[in-house]
This record gives sequence, structure tokens and C-alpha cells, in this order.
Amino acid sequence: MTTAFDTVIAHARETAALEAVMTRLGWDQRTVMPHRGSAQRAEELAALEKVLHARRTDPRLADWLDAAKAPTPEGAAMLREIARTRDRHARVPDTLAAELARVTSTAQDIWADARRHDNVAAFLPALEQVVALRREEAAAIADGGDPYDALMQDYEPGASGADTAAMFDRMRPRLVALREAILGAPTPEPLRGDFAQDGQLRLARKLAEAFGYDFTAGRIDLTVHPFCAGHGADVRITTRVVETQPFNCLYSTIHEVGHAAYEQGVDPELALSPIGRGVSMGVHESQSRIYENQLGRSRAFTGWLFDAMRAEFGPLNLDDADAFHAAVNRVTPGYIRTEADEIHYNLHIMMRFDLERDLLQGKLDVTDLEEAWNTRFQADFGVAVDRPANGVLQDVHWSAGLFGYFPTYSLGNVYAGCLNRAMRADLPNLDTRVAQGDLRAATGWLHDRLQRFGALRDPRDTIKAACGFAPTEAPLLDYLETKFRAL
Amino acid sequence: MTTAFDTVIAHARETAALEAVMTRLGWDQRTVMPHRGSAQRAEELAALEKVLHARRTDPRLADWLDAAKAPTPEGAAMLREIARTRDRHARVPDTLAAELARVTSTAQDIWADARRHDNVAAFLPALEQVVALRREEAAAIADGGDPYDALMQDYEPGASGADTAAMFDRMRPRLVALREAILGAPTPEPLRGDFAQDGQLRLARKLAEAFGYDFTAGRIDLTVHPFCAGHGADVRITTRVVETQPFNCLYSTIHEVGHAAYEQGVDPELALSPIGRGVSMGVHESQSRIYENQLGRSRAFTGWLFDAMRAEFGPLNLDDADAFHAAVNRVTPGYIRTEADEIHYNLHIMMRFDLERDLLQGKLDVTDLEEAWNTRFQADFGVAVDRPANGVLQDVHWSAGLFGYFPTYSLGNVYAGCLNRAMRADLPNLDTRVAQGDLRAATGWLHDRLQRFGALRDPRDTIKAACGFAPTEAPLLDYLETKFRAL
Repeated sequence: MTTAFDTVIAHARETAALEAVMTRLGWDQRTVMPHRGSAQRAEELAALEKVLHARRTDPRLADWLDAAKAPTPEGAAMLREIARTRDRHARVPDTLAAELARVTSTAQDIWADARRHDNVAAFLPALEQVVALRREEAAAIADGGDPYDALMQDYEPGASGADTAAMFDRMRPRLVALREAILGAPTPEPLRGDFAQDGQLRLARKLAEAFGYDFTAGRIDLTVHPFCAGHGADVRITTRVVETQPFNCLYSTIHEVGHAAYEQGVDPELALSPIGRGVSMGVHESQSRIYENQLGRSRAFTGWLFDAMRAEFGPLNLDDADAFHAAVNRVTPGYIRTEADEIHYNLHIMMRFDLERDLLQGKLDVTDLEEAWNTRFQADFGVAVDRPANGVLQDVHWSAGLFGYFPTYSLGNVYAGCLNRAMRADLPNLDTRVAQGDLRAATGWLHDRLQRFGALRDPRDTIKAACGFAPTEAPLLDYLETKFRAL
Repeated sequence: MTTAFDTVIAHARETAALEAVMTRLGWDQRTVMPHRGSAQRAEELAALEKVLHARRTDPRLADWLDAAKAPTPEGAAMLREIARTRDRHARVPDTLAAELARVTSTAQDIWADARRHDNVAAFLPALEQVVALRREEAAAIADGGDPYDALMQDYEPGASGADTAAMFDRMRPRLVALREAILGAPTPEPLRGDFAQDGQLRLARKLAEAFGYDFTAGRIDLTVHPFCAGHGADVRITTRVVETQPFNCLYSTIHEVGHAAYEQGVDPELALSPIGRGVSMGVHESQSRIYENQLGRSRAFTGWLFDAMRAEFGPLNLDDADAFHAAVNRVTPGYIRTEADEIHYNLHIMMRFDLERDLLQGKLDVTDLEEAWNTRFQADFGVAVDRPANGVLQDVHWSAGLFGYFPTYSLGNVYAGCLNRAMRADLPNLDTRVAQGDLRAATGWLHDRLQRFGALRDPRDTIKAACGFAPTEAPLLDYLETKFRAL
């Protein structure tokens, strides 16, 4: 006999399959789609989004959910997730959702153009529209609550602006003090030279394998902005190559492999279920960050990488592994978030968080955004923004309507700090193996403790269950201080 | 005010957008999908197919179609196409459609395995099931009519088994006589050597450009079996490389460019409409064939290709353009349809047509198919089949349930013959330009006369409107006799 539980789960499974199609179209668009295909593609995405919206808000879901009895904790988590998604989508009128899709799609094109020409004024009317629509949407979801908190739930269920602000207030003084100490010391010599694309890609594949990327369930392609897309047995990553900056390709590959490992590592029993994927952006970022930073930028691993790079490219301008390690971990107050070191990265996020929260709460006008950005950047980074492309126009997020997303990057760093502490307590000799390019103990620990559970638990509970303690920012800050004071 | 016509066309447009997604998933699966992704992909395809089926048989369509008044001939053709699709899908019960999808998917895997091991017996039970289900489906569609004719409509609307049989009866004697005459003469020397993949692909891209493939609305990838997928501004082709047989890559590229030119060439005004694509498999094949054969294998073009090959690969074993032309057009009675020359190709089709029609009409049992195949092959080709992979197991079609599809290949040849006659009458000096690798007059003629209209007219009317005469097999046979008697 088919129970209400079976019915609602089967329905969700088909929805998940169609969401996987949507994800695949996104990969295709950014990776292999012919230039002229975009208008047609926009109609495909809109048609599929309409199908998905109808399924997520199917009127039968209410009855099914009322009648359904979950036979297991996994089943209960699936029902919770279906109810959450339904509630979120049902609160937003179709017309508003369609308008948002249309406006953010256009705004991204306008933003790209404005960035290319350093023309903030050209972007502001579009941003104005996006902010207005997202505020309207936030009001519909929040039901009287805080609009910024409402939007955060899409990326980090359970997070709040107040908690995040309090966390950032605790982080800031230690980060700033650390930053000042480092910038007062001599700057290490950077890696120099030309590193051919073929060699970079060969080494990137080697790194991906070392970090456990399953090529039978994925592939690597080249794009301007690296990303990871997909779930389960089809999780694809991309990378990019700058011939004079090989760390760009190598570390973005490790970063995306972290995301991919989470998706590839979810228990196959949960595939295409509402919990068969990473639970939140923050937890996702914890995986990409711990792969990239706490593991990939550790002294143990850079020692191995130093040899691997010389094997691939011949002698380097840095002639020992310590100098190489210092070059990998150079700290400089640059303009661009995506190129920031482990310390400045969080300062970038804090700034964006404050600005976007003010925008959403109506405390900052779009017209004043550039000035607010520039003032804040000067204060936090000690450098004046030289041009909008290096300032307020640098990120795609706001043009795409992604408000509430930025803090998940820092949450990911904080979670990675917790996981790193717990993992190293469990595996005291980890570095001996990492120094040989053998990451299996580390990735195996993350798989067993976290990745395989997908979205079974809330984000914070996911980290707590993996670490054995509730997440705080302290382990990250301790790790950063220990690492960078030694450098 | 929105009319019933607007409503039904808007609905069809979304359906077409979702069909384009389905096509893209097919491309992805055959070109870039990771090995382990197939189980997940099957669920994605099934979920999307269910959405499409529901849209094509939406109960509101009947009322809309009753009320809709087409403002133009294009609009009338769109309504006809919507009604035809609705009728066809509404006649087949959901359970049967789902069972067919499941069984043909499995049967294709079983077939691939059986072919690899030359094990006909392992394939027959699956084929038995496929034939039984397709007969059931044909009965549902045919409504008392001929089951084979019913299935043909999916690939060639308006075609019938009786017409096709009569056409083949007229073609056979002249083809057989021509074949005997050629096989009685000395065999030309083949092209020999190793042709590196890079060079083949470079030349393939050059050929694609020469034949008008628009790379801004498409791309070329490598697959085991070349194909073309997509409509409008996103039409992708694939090719393959056998280093010892460069004509394989070069002519399959030209062939797929023919298909792609039809889809890329449809008037953008018709994009995502029910007539915004090629009208039938036969007319599609007419484009791929005339590009590949009447143009690509002409003495004028092979002369240009001879020079292009020497420029790419250095000296060849054939030292003049006539010998090269003869090598391109070698006639040999091989086992494999996809490798057959212009003459034997049609004999392959006639044989499959008779066998599959007998299967569908219940005149031939699946258990007797291999013997029937081998007997017929010996009679038609004068050679005994050496192994099932070279015989009854060579084609994927039947395992996929594609009964009624094979004759469209020969119809394509026949239509190409007609188009070639009309085109050369209109453009008497065409070969002068073709000999310089300039195909624009030819492809322009095909675009203006045929490609841009998409599915505005029936298949036969499409050819008739382009040529100015009703299609018959005579121009093809005249062309073959003239060409091969000269060789």
C-alpha cells in the first residue's frame, strides 16, 4: 500500500530530478553553450522554473504532509525540507517571482557592462529595482520579521543577521590585530614565471585526484569564474588558468573539489531526496575552504606541492619549500574579494554584510552605496578604491539579487576552523600523510563525519555533529593566528 | 486582448522550450556526461518526459484548438502541428508510454552487450518485448489502420509503407544493375596512411565553415557516433576520428553540418514555434545527404579537398585529384550500413524496411529475424554475414523501438536527388565555385528554397516547393548512374 509519506517523497523525487536538470542547464550555459544560444536558453529556464514552482507549491502537498508519517529520522528531515520549501515558495506571488527572475537576469547583463566601463551610474537604476523587488519578496516571506533574515534562509537556514553581526564583532578585533602584525613584517617573495596552461591543468587534475574528486562522477572544464554544479553521481567543476599566477588555477581547483566532494559524498541512499545534497551555502563553503586552506595551504601540503610544481615546470624562483609556503600564504590588502588571502577575505565579507543589510532594511539608499563602499574600504583596508570595478562593482551577487548570501562565505571559514580543530584532534599524525600528498585520512574524516549526511541536520547541527562541539569563531581565529604568526 | 490562438501558441512555445531542454540533456548524455551519471539521468529524463506528455495532452488544448483562428498560413501550420501531436500522444495510455520508455532504455543496453559478444540469443527476449509494445502502441495510434504506417508518422508524416515499398521496387533494378556494372570494373586505389586527430579536426572545422555551419550558434565535439542536436540558435554537432580513415571524420562532419544548417537556417521568427524545426527525418536527411554526397563527394569539391588534405597532411598515396575522387567514391559491398557507399546504402535500407515491416505486421517472428537477415543479405549483397555484429545486431534502432525510421534515410537520398537536380538547373555554373571550396551559392539556394521554412509544409510539399516538381526517385538514380558510370 502506498502511504502519504511514499506519495510525497515520490513527488519530491521528481521535483529533485527536474532541479537537477535546471542545474545542468546552468552548467551548460556557463561552460559550453554557444554564444548566440542565450535568448533561447532564457525561455528554457523560465519554462522549467514555472514547472518547478508549480510542483513546489502543489496544493496537494498540504494534505500529503498532514497525513505523512516519517518512518525514520531521514524521512522526518525530508518532510521538514519539503514543508520549508513549499512554505517559502507559496508565500511569494507568481507575478513577483517572475518579475524577479526577469529583472535579475537583465540586471546581471547591465552590471557586467557597467563593470567593464567603470560606470556605477549605469548600474544603479537596475540595482534599485532589484533591491525593491527583493525587499518586497522578503516582506512576503518574513511575515513581519526582519527582511534580511528572511532572505538569509535561502542560503543558510537558521542563520540571522543579528547572530552574524555579533559573530563579526567578535572576529574583527583579532583579525585586524593579526593583519596589522603581518603587514608590519617584511613581505615574502611571490612566485614568478610563466606556467603553461597544459601543465597547470595536468597538475590541477592531479590535485583533484589527491583530494578525492571522483572523475567517473564528474569532469573539469575551463570557465572565466570557477564553479561546482550538480549532485550525487554527476558533480562537475570548472577552473581557470592565468599563466603568470598558477595558484589561481591550483587553489580554485582544490576549492571546487571541496564543494564537489560534499555533493559526491552524500549517501547514495539519499540521492534525489530533499536531503540528498549539501545543507547550506555555509556548510558547503566549509568543505571548499578546509580543502583549500586548512589542508591545501598547510605547510605539510605546500611542501608536497613545491615538489610537484618543480616536477611539472622545472626550477622555480623560490628555492626552498619554506619560501614556497610563504608565497602561497602571502597577505596583501587587495581590492578584490575573490583574490583575498585568508585574513582579508573575512574583512571583505563583513563590509558587504553591513552594506547589504542596510540596503535591505532601508537604512542605506542605493544612490549612496558607492560612497558607503569607498569610505568603508578605506577604513578597513587602509587603501582608497581606485575604480568601481575594483570596488562596488566587483561582485555579481547584488545584480543577481543575492542578498544574504555573502555572510555564508565567512560562516564557511568559521565552520572550516571548527572542523579543522576536531579533525586534527582525531588524527594527530595527519600532517605526515598530507606531506606525502595523501589526503585520504582527512577527506575520509570529513566524509564520515559530515559529507555523507547531506542535509539531514540543520547547518549548525551538521557542524556540531561532525566536531562534537557547537561551532564558534574561536578555532578559526586560533588557527589563523598560529599559522600567520609563524610565517 | 489575448485570443485562443495566442493562448495555444504561448502554451506550445513553453512546451517547445522544455523539448529543447530534453534535446540538450540528450546531447549532454552522449557527449560530456560522466560515466556514473546515467542512473540519475534516467530519472531526470523520465520526470521531464512526464511533464512534456502532460503538456502535449493538456485537456484545455481541445477547447483552445476549437476556438483558435490562425491569422496566417504559418499560424495554421502551427495549429495543425499542435493538433497532430496532441492526437498522437493522447491515443497512447500513460502506462504504455512509460513501459515503452523503460523497456527500450534497457533493451539498448542489452543490445550493446549482445553486439559486443555477437550473442543474438541474449538480445531476442528484449527485442520481443520492444516489438510487442510498439505493436500495441501502433494499434492505439492506427485506430484500425496499418501498424507500420502508424509508426512511420512519427518520423515522416504522410509516408506509408505501401508507397515506400513501391518506390523501392522502382529503385531496386536500376541500383542493382549499376552495382553490378561497378563491381565488374577494377576497384580504385583507396586512400592510405595515418592522419593525426588534430589535423583531421582542423580540417573538419574548415569544412564545417565552408558548408556554412554557424559556430556562434553551435559547437563540435567528439563522440563515438556522430549526431546533430538542437534547434535555432543552439545546434550542436559531433564527429569522430579514425586515424587511418580520415573520410570518416570529414564526411560525417559535412553530413551533420547538413542537418545543422537546416535547424540553424529556420526563420528566427518561427523559433520555439511548433513549426520552428525540420519537418521530418526524410527532409532532414535530404539536407545532410546533399551536403555530404551531391556536393561533398562531387568531382568539383573533392578536387578542392585533395588540395586541402595535402596542405594539412603533406603528400598522399594518391597523386592526382581524379584518383582522390575515385577513392572518395569507392563502391564496395560491406556489411555495415553506416559505412556504405551511395549505392549500397539504399540496398541496406530496403532490406531493413522489409524486415521491420514484416515484424510489425506480424508476418515475421523475432526468433526468425537473424535467419531472415542473413538470407536476404546474401541475396542482395552477394556475401555471407560473418558475424551478428556485422549483421542483424549492427544497428541500435530496433532496440530503441525505432520501427518505421529506416526508410527515411532512403527518402532523404531521394529528396536530395530532387533538390540536386533543381539546384543545378537554377545554378548552372555551381561547380566552378564548389571547386574553389565556395559552397555559398549551394547552401544559400537550399536555405532560401527549403531550410528557412522549417515545418511550414508537409515533407513532400516541402520538397516540391523547393524543387518546383513532385519528388520521385528518378533524379537520384539518374545522378548515381551518371556519376558512377563516369568513375
